[in-house]
Amino acid sequence: MGIMSLSQKEVINALRKGKVTICVVGLGRIGLPQAALFADRGAHVIGADVDPAVVECVNSGRSHLLDEPGLDRLVMSATNSGRLKATVDTSLGVEAADFVIVSVPTPISAKRIPDYSQMEEACHAIAKTLPKDCLIIIESTVGPGAVEDFVIPLLEEEAKMEVCVDFGVASCPERADPGGLLRDLTTVPRIVGGINDKSAEIARALYREIFGVEVVVVSDPKTANAAKLAENLFRDVNIALVSEFALLYEKLGIDAIEVIDACSTKYNFMPHYPSAGVGGPCLPQNPYFLIYEGMKAGYIPRMVQMARQINDDTPKRAVAMATMALRRINKKAESSKIAILGVTYKPNIRDLQHTPVEKIFISLKEIGATLKLYDPMFRDEEVFGKRISRSVEEAVRDADCILIGTAHDEFRNLDLDLLRERCNMPAVFADIANISDPSIVEEHGFTYAGIRKPEKSWSLREEEDSLQCTASQ
Amino acid sequence: MGIMSLSQKEVINALRKGKVTICVVGLGRIGLPQAALFADRGAHVIGADVDPAVVECVNSGRSHLLDEPGLDRLVMSATNSGRLKATVDTSLGVEAADFVIVSVPTPISAKRIPDYSQMEEACHAIAKTLPKDCLIIIESTVGPGAVEDFVIPLLEEEAKMEVCVDFGVASCPERADPGGLLRDLTTVPRIVGGINDKSAEIARALYREIFGVEVVVVSDPKTANAAKLAENLFRDVNIALVSEFALLYEKLGIDAIEVIDACSTKYNFMPHYPSAGVGGPCLPQNPYFLIYEGMKAGYIPRMVQMARQINDDTPKRAVAMATMALRRINKKAESSKIAILGVTYKPNIRDLQHTPVEKIFISLKEIGATLKLYDPMFRDEEVFGKRISRSVEEAVRDADCILIGTAHDEFRNLDLDLLRERCNMPAVFADIANISDPSIVEEHGFTYAGIRKPEKSWSLREEEDSLQCTASQ
Repeated sequence: MGIMSLSQKEVINALRKGKVTICVVGLGRIGLPQAALFADRGAHVIGADVDPAVVECVNSGRSHLLDEPGLDRLVMSATNSGRLKATVDTSLGVEAADFVIVSVPTPISAKRIPDYSQMEEACHAIAKTLPKDCLIIIESTVGPGAVEDFVIPLLEEEAKMEVCVDFGVASCPERADPGGLLRDLTTVPRIVGGINDKSAEIARALYREIFGVEVVVVSDPKTANAAKLAENLFRDVNIALVSEFALLYEKLGIDAIEVIDACSTKYNFMPHYPSAGVGGPCLPQNPYFLIYEGMKAGYIPRMVQMARQINDDTPKRAVAMATMALRRINKKAESSKIAILGVTYKPNIRDLQHTPVEKIFISLKEIGATLKLYDPMFRDEEVFGKRISRSVEEAVRDADCILIGTAHDEFRNLDLDLLRERCNMPAVFADIANISDPSIVEEHGFTYAGIRKPEKSWSLREEEDSLQCTASQ
Repeated sequence: MGIMSLSQKEVINALRKGKVTICVVGLGRIGLPQAALFADRGAHVIGADVDPAVVECVNSGRSHLLDEPGLDRLVMSATNSGRLKATVDTSLGVEAADFVIVSVPTPISAKRIPDYSQMEEACHAIAKTLPKDCLIIIESTVGPGAVEDFVIPLLEEEAKMEVCVDFGVASCPERADPGGLLRDLTTVPRIVGGINDKSAEIARALYREIFGVEVVVVSDPKTANAAKLAENLFRDVNIALVSEFALLYEKLGIDAIEVIDACSTKYNFMPHYPSAGVGGPCLPQNPYFLIYEGMKAGYIPRMVQMARQINDDTPKRAVAMATMALRRINKKAESSKIAILGVTYKPNIRDLQHTPVEKIFISLKEIGATLKLYDPMFRDEEVFGKRISRSVEEAVRDADCILIGTAHDEFRNLDLDLLRERCNMPAVFADIANISDPSIVEEHGFTYAGIRKPEKSWSLREEEDSLQCTASQ
């Protein structure tokens, strides 16, 4: 007796009594925390992942994600309770499931089109043993229409079953922020779009009962997926906008951060801040899902495309800032030693996905600079093919330039006197992450580079040249 | 003994005791409400305006702005108290002033560059009688740098006085929203940038004491002006973004409003909604202040420029929607009678500045449609060279198409049965302002046009053609 054959009331009852079995397909950054939360709140959970190391890790009661506050303990207790088990065999996990939650990666290929191969693989495995009256919920990010036009036909064909009759399908795109997943999963409202009302209703009951969050039901899966993309594209576009503001304000002798902070006091303004660029699993990728659907439908949102270009180019601007500041102290980047502090795409998480700092690293390496890296999340590990230093002090030894790539908490109270002693003064302090006060940096003898202190002495000509290079790529 | 020669404490004391004289130059949408508020809160206020009709109106105790809730009564009481007087002679008003608030229009010329001629004229008049130790506050929107590079040199030369020594200057760009000015002026924090600390300090005291609002002091006038522009450009860019979303979502069979409402449930999303386009005194103009400074400095923010193009084109899209819907009921726009309901740039205000509905009107007129206009704010007056109908019923008589241009409250509960009786059915209901439920509109026998109900029957080819026309302009 599958979940889709029950009334709304019976479903809620089953959820409250822990009488449901949930198969979570994909135990990554979103899948694992959800699997653990489902189990923690009473459900029987089978987590499926193609990576045996992940499965083994989870079955031994540990999280393979090391930077999610509270997750390790949650996985441990969920595994200990016997309600969370992991397997590499998706079909086995699906066999007894009331709910199948699909949370596999959907990356963007080198050609910048969605790569649904892992989704396809997951669908094949799910279809093999899909029980009758099961509800399949797609949480992975997909283009609007991909669930209707690709996922459902595939499942129907492979399972020899009919959607709405034999099984239900809903989209409920994840909206949680890495580094704060457990908080977001249990507080941020979810958006559910079902292939029919029944699918939406049951999916809604699941999230509401188990996570205790508000659930917004929209017309269909494609509307839910469009919403997921729109909220991330909003961020990507607005970060591109402030990056452009910063570029111009610098020329006008205006501090972009001061401007944004001032704007924030108005009720209809939402602040976004410039930094080394845009990274992570979502923002650099999500626009291409919409651009791809747009290409097929005959209209590509131009703002979305331009924001991507601008944000992709931002790391080069950081390189230009550091290079030109070195020139001001009569040093050349190619013969300088540069210590990059912070390599992750955002502060205080252990995630290198699409980190803009890698682009900065590559550019500086190409120029010929001698590079050292430090990041508290990867101490003594290898990143970008290079060993991460054990400490800030080790990384900055004899450096001509310190470049702050990520605003990790550890960098907010750097001992500038100590750094000056270690560095090969005169040296540049390139604060790409905007964590420092330029005047304090300069009081300590460093040459500041960054957007905060307007560098009026820069040659506009130089800056224009570097911009043109960037724009023409 | 001018205000700039007093200590901060003495200034606050004088403000509290109503012992200050404020000259407000420009009694327009921002100047008049402020003048009235200053007087209401105890200051002696002289309002100067080049328009004798405005001066006469104010001196007779009335507001020439008819759509600002509470303003009429405030002007009346301020005038009656004897603390608000108006004059056409700016120099006369400045003579005895402690503060001179400059709130003159700074439009954008046909060539899309700032037209500071009224600011220049005001400066000439102010300089003639500028008393020593006066503080001049520029509230008009200007490009970052215009106060430092243009306003101050002009004042110094004309007055033969030295800034910081003989008089102070600060920028405090207005941030109030037409239709809610009195509310915003007394609640929204102000941003002050002074030419020196003393100017900023005294300006801050004025706004804090008299309006009771928080005052954010930034480095200099140009930073304050950059903030004013950034917050409006943020809106312009985000409206362009949702307009593009709407364009694509329609092709994908997705309701843009449903998507935006769903996104709004996430903490880091701020909703903006598509409509007939972007109008008013600020949004269509402000970007050109920054673009102009950008041209001079060598970097034009591309997102800002593109947003302007998109928003300028939005009214044409409304025309295309109405035209294509008429075609679906076998009518041609050129031989149709179209009733446009709502002509202002935003709901419930009496303001036609840069209203996108004018562009819709002109396009439909060029096509050859017979047009009727109705707007509750302009009943029986002439707008766009045409008399506004006295009622909705009058406007829609025998119409083949009703086009909602502005979301005035009056249109939120239209009697669709009555409209159907009046119209030449079959007829189109083109809801460009998104105030109606498409299914209810269609239940009443109208053909709905707008972004809410995906019009899958539209030929993509047609839509593309119309877009290309638009894009190539």
